[in-house]
Amino acid sequence: MNKNSSNTMALAPNTSNKRETVCIFGTGDFGRALGHKMIQSGYPVVYGSRSTQISNLIPKDAEVLGHAEAAQKAAIIIIAIQRQHYNFLTPLAEVLRGKVLVDISNNLKLNQYPESNAEHLAQLLPGSKVVKAFNTVSAWALQSGTLDASRQVFVCGDDVEAKQMVMNIVRALGLTPLDKGSLLAAQEIENYPLQLFPMWKFPIFLSLGLTAFFFFYCVVLDIIYTYIYENNNFSFFIAITIPNRVCPVMALILLALVYLPGIFAAIIQLYRGTKYRRFPDWLDKWMLCRKQLGLIALAFASLHAVFTLVTPLRAFASWRTGKGIISQVLNNKTEPLDHTNAWLSDSYLALGILGFFLFVLLGITSLPSVSNNVNWREFRFVQSKLGYLALIFCTAHTLVYGGKWFLSPSAYKWYLPNIYILSLIIPCAVLVVKFVLILPCIDKPLTQIRQGWERNPKYSK
Amino acid sequence: MNKNSSNTMALAPNTSNKRETVCIFGTGDFGRALGHKMIQSGYPVVYGSRSTQISNLIPKDAEVLGHAEAAQKAAIIIIAIQRQHYNFLTPLAEVLRGKVLVDISNNLKLNQYPESNAEHLAQLLPGSKVVKAFNTVSAWALQSGTLDASRQVFVCGDDVEAKQMVMNIVRALGLTPLDKGSLLAAQEIENYPLQLFPMWKFPIFLSLGLTAFFFFYCVVLDIIYTYIYENNNFSFFIAITIPNRVCPVMALILLALVYLPGIFAAIIQLYRGTKYRRFPDWLDKWMLCRKQLGLIALAFASLHAVFTLVTPLRAFASWRTGKGIISQVLNNKTEPLDHTNAWLSDSYLALGILGFFLFVLLGITSLPSVSNNVNWREFRFVQSKLGYLALIFCTAHTLVYGGKWFLSPSAYKWYLPNIYILSLIIPCAVLVVKFVLILPCIDKPLTQIRQGWERNPKYSK
Amino acid sequence: MNKNSSNTMALAPNTSNKRETVCIFGTGDFGRALGHKMIQSGYPVVYGSRSTQISNLIPKDAEVLGHAEAAQKAAIIIIAIQRQHYNFLTPLAEVLRGKVLVDISNNLKLNQYPESNAEHLAQLLPGSKVVKAFNTVSAWALQSGTLDASRQVFVCGDDVEAKQMVMNIVRALGLTPLDKGSLLAAQEIENYPLQLFPMWKFPIFLSLGLTAFFFFYCVVLDIIYTYIYENNNFSFFIAITIPNRVCPVMALILLALVYLPGIFAAIIQLYRGTKYRRFPDWLDKWMLCRKQLGLIALAFASLHAVFTLVTPLRAFASWRTGKGIISQVLNNKTEPLDHTNAWLSDSYLALGILGFFLFVLLGITSLPSVSNNVNWREFRFVQSKLGYLALIFCTAHTLVYGGKWFLSPSAYKWYLPNIYILSLIIPCAVLVVKFVLILPCIDKPLTQIRQGWERNPKYSK
Repeated sequence: MNKNSSNTMALAPNTSNKRETVCIFGTGDFGRALGHKMIQSGYPVVYGSRSTQISNLIPKDAEVLGHAEAAQKAAIIIIAIQRQHYNFLTPLAEVLRGKVLVDISNNLKLNQYPESNAEHLAQLLPGSKVVKAFNTVSAWALQSGTLDASRQVFVCGDDVEAKQMVMNIVRALGLTPLDKGSLLAAQEIENYPLQLFPMWKFPIFLSLGLTAFFFFYCVVLDIIYTYIYENNNFSFFIAITIPNRVCPVMALILLALVYLPGIFAAIIQLYRGTKYRRFPDWLDKWMLCRKQLGLIALAFASLHAVFTLVTPLRAFASWRTGKGIISQVLNNKTEPLDHTNAWLSDSYLALGILGFFLFVLLGITSLPSVSNNVNWREFRFVQSKLGYLALIFCTAHTLVYGGKWFLSPSAYKWYLPNIYILSLIIPCAVLVVKFVLILPCIDKPLTQIRQGWERNPKYSK
Repeated sequence: MNKNSSNTMALAPNTSNKRETVCIFGTGDFGRALGHKMIQSGYPVVYGSRSTQISNLIPKDAEVLGHAEAAQKAAIIIIAIQRQHYNFLTPLAEVLRGKVLVDISNNLKLNQYPESNAEHLAQLLPGSKVVKAFNTVSAWALQSGTLDASRQVFVCGDDVEAKQMVMNIVRALGLTPLDKGSLLAAQEIENYPLQLFPMWKFPIFLSLGLTAFFFFYCVVLDIIYTYIYENNNFSFFIAITIPNRVCPVMALILLALVYLPGIFAAIIQLYRGTKYRRFPDWLDKWMLCRKQLGLIALAFASLHAVFTLVTPLRAFASWRTGKGIISQVLNNKTEPLDHTNAWLSDSYLALGILGFFLFVLLGITSLPSVSNNVNWREFRFVQSKLGYLALIFCTAHTLVYGGKWFLSPSAYKWYLPNIYILSLIIPCAVLVVKFVLILPCIDKPLTQIRQGWERNPKYSK
Repeated sequence: MNKNSSNTMALAPNTSNKRETVCIFGTGDFGRALGHKMIQSGYPVVYGSRSTQISNLIPKDAEVLGHAEAAQKAAIIIIAIQRQHYNFLTPLAEVLRGKVLVDISNNLKLNQYPESNAEHLAQLLPGSKVVKAFNTVSAWALQSGTLDASRQVFVCGDDVEAKQMVMNIVRALGLTPLDKGSLLAAQEIENYPLQLFPMWKFPIFLSLGLTAFFFFYCVVLDIIYTYIYENNNFSFFIAITIPNRVCPVMALILLALVYLPGIFAAIIQLYRGTKYRRFPDWLDKWMLCRKQLGLIALAFASLHAVFTLVTPLRAFASWRTGKGIISQVLNNKTEPLDHTNAWLSDSYLALGILGFFLFVLLGITSLPSVSNNVNWREFRFVQSKLGYLALIFCTAHTLVYGGKWFLSPSAYKWYLPNIYILSLIIPCAVLVVKFVLILPCIDKPLTQIRQGWERNPKYSK
């Protein structure tokens, strides 16, 4: 898919004398990388620098001049200097009047300054047309040409024509410009490259915490308990048996946690009788990370599926099979097929497969390119209807598989419930409350509230 | 991926006094939700309403005025009222002259009116610049900020500048505007949110019908027949055995149905000697839903793969394995490896794996973001060459697996053929005809026809 | 997802008399297909042709006139003739002055002419506004309406307004215009449809070569050697056993080859003490196809996973299991669980599962729509951190599984090492060198170099 970059290279020789000159202020790393790339794409580049001594760091084909002379040679000036040095541009205001200034700066922290660097620049030089661009691209990637990741360059600015000029340069460099509107979007664009999966943090920490808890819980009950009371060393359960007990539990709980905030929201709206009041902050945040919770649940479910499928390949499993058959042989009798068992085994497998299938379908639908191709009605149909169906299947799968443990006293080692029992609490609660919520007598007022109706319209007055 | 919405919130405090005022006509649900969101994003909002009594439903920071006064305060007026009340805007024509009117209305049915609401509005107020936007976004999602689904907002309008202004608002709200061209696109945009998977309806109903038929067929032959003649109760086959017989059959038939219309099209073109006549309607529709048929086939194939892989985990399977080994032991003889059997078993598994692998590759290629990155030549290579290869592998997989049943009389319980035999009819027919079509003596005229050549150029005169 | 095309059809009757007339020069295949589609979308179409005799090939509702008369009827003229006949347009220069000329031509070879067809046209007719468009769409697809593949139409041109007009037509035809900037992009756009996976060629040929080599290597060692020295005919190993030996080896080697060029690059930069010199060409090319190598590695890993999971379904496997159990029975003793074996078996399975899981995660992240939604920091985190983790897991998986063969002399049939040993060379080398590179004493200068620092700033002077 890296066609563009190779083509851009191929283009270079034919086009080198047709592009308009671009001026770059500042000979730092990013300024040089951008200059290299622009020269490669056929732009004459002139650098504006304090010292006009030609440094070998600067691309060979570029000219180096003083700031004022360099600025006069081009209509577009790329400001590749740091925000704290922007002040030195004020004396150049007259030269820069009417020019397009491209702010490519990044900060070190989110929301470091009250206003974005680009807006700051626009305030310093009100006569120039400031465009924010290129800050989301990595100098190293520009330099090496290995633009494997996003080729999107966010562009914003108040002057439409200036934005068009910058977007043309972006395109010529083999990148894809994305118009983000007026210069007010600059803060968002400057924050963008500093983020590291902001929406994933809470779901990931929650999952790690829960996983660690359940893993420890299983080690205690399955390995330590067995070792103490049955004198069996099952330490190798750590590799597959216990992960395959933790994964389905995590998948089920996280899937239920995707639908729990919706339940809370419905209850709050019913109680308040209006939708025109904000939810508590924790609920807002929870609702915003439902997609991430769901995808992590899907990851656990996939691991569970694979861990289960490799079971017959385990040395332990083939030893156990052999032992069972040999004990039958030595007792000289063939057991007939246990029909109840066959039914149970086949149903929990079938329920698990169908639940997982719907789960994967939900995952595919949440791919950006797929969800952009469905409208709201379709998205809600898939995520709500199919999602609840998946939750029902997965809960039933767990119930059929682990149901026998509920009543058996042997399931309560050290008076602790089996983790299957723990895993079912939230999903069952969600399903029961959801069932109540879709009863017509409750669904009707809720739908009215969501369509804007209020129980006490004068409430807040 | 929900970064934008969180950022937009973060932006609000800094930007609240820089945006231009927006006027909203109508204080219904969507008007209020949009107003809330705009105030959050820093826009001063003024509502135009019949009664200027301040209702607590309206966002606190918004002003409420009469229609004319409200309109004078803003360059952009969002018309959040229903089409049937548009007439009341005609007296305001003078106030609205030159203003940007944003039509956000939706209808209740597809193509409810001869012309779209936005075009109707433009006819009523020829002096205003009408832009269609926002109708594809859900009020509930705007309100709660949980824009999990598409952030795309389709925008269309005849005035480029007015469209730009509206697109800037869309971006400021954390959404992605998508320019759909002139106001003529409004009808399509108004129909969009009313659809529920229109291209999927026929393929899904077809699959459901066929699945039900084959399921019933298998229940009769595998459970009822066995119960009557062999007195064996295999009712638990319903959970896994029979689904795993129906799924591969469905996958194979649907995959063949993807390539069948292409075969028909080629035959029709060869017969007519021209490509410049429309295909019959049923063929046109069939061709348009090939992608959907293929994806449903892939779903069935995936289910088949998982159902097959869980086989060793079934209580029935381990009982059967045990029984086989024990009977060998009791007869006191070890069977040598049956090489023919080993070859057959390994080849149908290998063929199935390769076929499924190619099938999944086709599925990945049909993801919108992937297919947008390949050109036509590449797309046709994958979908046609690799697609036929997948069909060949899957057909061979079924032939090797089920081939032995063709001749065995026991396969014809109640004189009904085994479903493997039924499943092979269409794929084999497709492959045979395709083989004939790529013979040079037939392929050459077909290619000429597809390049625009006609056998009887004066034919239709 | 083919909603647009159906809607466009639905639109046609309502809009047929509102669109502006479009003129098409040339009545070849593509000209006719485009005309058909435009008439369907409501555009009045007039053809400019040498002979104004009405041919039945031309859409019924279109007018046919001489070139000059046809051009006068429309503001947009689509030039559906071949480049070599562009000269005949020069006499029409006066008529075409100020008109929008849409160049839709394609060449037969990449970079066939020094300048693109569209630029050539613009030079011939400097008074007209040339826009490149439509060349990436297939006539056959336009004709039949089955636009399954990319709906993207690349558009470029120097006149913004002319480009907007053409993009509106593109949208009206149910396609998505993509602005590629000025007319200089025309060469790239003309090359685009001629490519057949250019970035995939080297990785695919490399994989095919290596696969053939390893396949042959395994056939020799596992089938021929066994046949000669042990007189066992294991020819059926060709179907599953040997592919399942080759696939993991290929996956591991290709995954290591993804990270090897980064290692080379780091060493070269450390040696040179600067990042401002181009890498050797082979390294540049290698770095550009890392994504493709990784995806092919993922394909092999997936095949390996499925081949492994079907193992218990093989006739050979159940025969071997039975044989093992029966021999235990006949010896009248039950073997106790071998704990070392249980540990080994479970750990290599668990390592393989985790490695594969991370591998799939990397694959999903490289989907265009996903990678467009992550910033550079996130992309590098996933591809570098998670990628190396996947490599570590997969190497450990192979080491634990195949480790026992290193020392055993029976692994060296015909003095040839087992392929597990071969497969580990590159991954282990990559991991060892990478480990050295992240030692602080080496990582620090490397980071400095990548931030633009130079050891010998006057080096090249």
